[in-house]
Amino acid sequence: MRILLDGMGGDYAPVEIVKGAVAAAREIDDTIAILGPEDRIRECLENEGWQGDNIEVINCTEVITNDEAPAMAVKKKKDSTISKGMTLMKDGAADAFISAGSTGALLSGGLLLLGRIKGIKRPAIAAFFPKIGMNDTTLLLDCGANVDSKPEYLLQNGIMGSIFVECVKGKTNPAVRLLNVGAEDAKGDELRKEAFSLLKDSDLNFEGNIEGRDVVHTDCDVVVCDGFSGNVFLKSSEGMALALLKAVKEKLTEGIRAKLGAALSYNKLKELKDEFDYSQEGAAPILGLKGAVLKMHGNSKALEVYYAVKKAIPYVENDVTGKIEKAIGKKSIFGLKITD
Amino acid sequence: MRILLDGMGGDYAPVEIVKGAVAAAREIDDTIAILGPEDRIRECLENEGWQGDNIEVINCTEVITNDEAPAMAVKKKKDSTISKGMTLMKDGAADAFISAGSTGALLSGGLLLLGRIKGIKRPAIAAFFPKIGMNDTTLLLDCGANVDSKPEYLLQNGIMGSIFVECVKGKTNPAVRLLNVGAEDAKGDELRKEAFSLLKDSDLNFEGNIEGRDVVHTDCDVVVCDGFSGNVFLKSSEGMALALLKAVKEKLTEGIRAKLGAALSYNKLKELKDEFDYSQEGAAPILGLKGAVLKMHGNSKALEVYYAVKKAIPYVENDVTGKIEKAIGKKSIFGLKITD
Repeated sequence: MRILLDGMGGDYAPVEIVKGAVAAAREIDDTIAILGPEDRIRECLENEGWQGDNIEVINCTEVITNDEAPAMAVKKKKDSTISKGMTLMKDGAADAFISAGSTGALLSGGLLLLGRIKGIKRPAIAAFFPKIGMNDTTLLLDCGANVDSKPEYLLQNGIMGSIFVECVKGKTNPAVRLLNVGAEDAKGDELRKEAFSLLKDSDLNFEGNIEGRDVVHTDCDVVVCDGFSGNVFLKSSEGMALALLKAVKEKLTEGIRAKLGAALSYNKLKELKDEFDYSQEGAAPILGLKGAVLKMHGNSKALEVYYAVKKAIPYVENDVTGKIEKAIGKKSIFGLKITD
Repeated sequence: MRILLDGMGGDYAPVEIVKGAVAAAREIDDTIAILGPEDRIRECLENEGWQGDNIEVINCTEVITNDEAPAMAVKKKKDSTISKGMTLMKDGAADAFISAGSTGALLSGGLLLLGRIKGIKRPAIAAFFPKIGMNDTTLLLDCGANVDSKPEYLLQNGIMGSIFVECVKGKTNPAVRLLNVGAEDAKGDELRKEAFSLLKDSDLNFEGNIEGRDVVHTDCDVVVCDGFSGNVFLKSSEGMALALLKAVKEKLTEGIRAKLGAALSYNKLKELKDEFDYSQEGAAPILGLKGAVLKMHGNSKALEVYYAVKKAIPYVENDVTGKIEKAIGKKSIFGLKITD
């Protein structure tokens, strides 16, 4: 297996990206190919004391920044890490592509250079959301690839999410729910009402609507949403979690009495923080493209890179892409109402 | 001033509603009129030892439940607390109406019996969202009245929210933002792009887009959103806050060492919990109706009722309804592009 890693994506590239690649490469037999300016990447590898043989460097002279218009940048900067990575994927020269770079550029590059799976209307960004106290996650999609959605996209999100969870987490017949403003069947806007009946008529294990407040503690595997509300959901939950954990820390260090208390509670609070820590979940797959493309947070460091590489392996090994293609093609399996 | 209180709305009616009414009535000169079956309400008043003269009881023989189709129920059950309350408001026999009953019935009753302010396209539910560590709140609207929205509704939400914050919190020129998937101007779906330009062209103090994760710590007064994403935002933040606070409590009572720590930190953690406690904020105003209508959480107890009554007073005294009507009428003031 050959895993491509965008050496120039994110806030801490290339140093932390290379550091994470080295940590992962030491544990796996597969090859990691880092895309970026060869000199800089090699220098970073040297600084890490790397002497193994399963890291390659693929020279790229350009980088796409977050400020550029994605589609334009992808077309113009043919020697950028993202354009080159997508082209290598398209050519079958790599099995997965991981990047902490611009989401827009990754999506544009995916659509323009790698392409969609036949029958898939829109690729979707799938994020792992922690279920507190359950040591598990829910796969939430779409989290921002398509802000203007149609009911059919939501059905396809349910299909892609189910296949991903089944393949990568080994969970059979994953439970799917639709993010909505109420739990009752008839709730929501026009988009949700139509998506609900499509999901209900499909062969997915659809368990109905779910409200924003219940995702964190409900035993369900896939939460289907449009890119706008998924993004709002994810970011508001994150914002609240970060604000609260910060506030807990501040409160616990106000005054000697509380400080002493905090010292005694430290390990327990640390455990809690880890439970909310997304870093070990790996990167967010962009499902629906003709290959395994994974998006890391822009602020990813070596640990996130390490987990992203390790978690990409079952994605490829279980042929998620092929299975999505098959499911979308065989209308009978899922009882789909897909027109292409 | 005569404040109507739905004695039969919510999970703890009528006992907790009456208890809260008594607590508020003891501190204010205005009259509280409780709607409900007279015998039961009077019995509750007796149990509270009420002997004052500023609580009235208005007999209602019917109640609208959460399971009923709202518009139908409002029309059919003319002697329900909600229908009667709205009719009294319409007739000018009361200044505010507070209820913890069905949101749908309150909205339907508001639209059918009380009516919209002239020029207002859709009323909106406005909720107070805590800004952590800033001892302040942001007014978020709409939180679920309209799940299918148009750009113009969002502009009107900005206007209504600004007037409410200016009148009730005394903040001049409140800062308004648009809930979106990114902070840059051009972000979002079609609805957001059009709403952005309407807000930008208005005379509101519009400061641009805001992402879900930043609301909790950004110094802005009004966050404009459509009813679907506002509902998702509010419920996901709430869900995360509740799950986290529960987890903190559980972690801190695992093992003797942590328990001792928790005992020492108790006061500080209590302070934090209070900061996230919405109960003191009062009820959520449904802005855009021809009168002050406020919706309490279904799980409201006496404390919430007490604060809802007290916070309703400045809403009426400052004539928020009249000011919204004026602002919407005088197109020149806000540079509105409103067609009616």
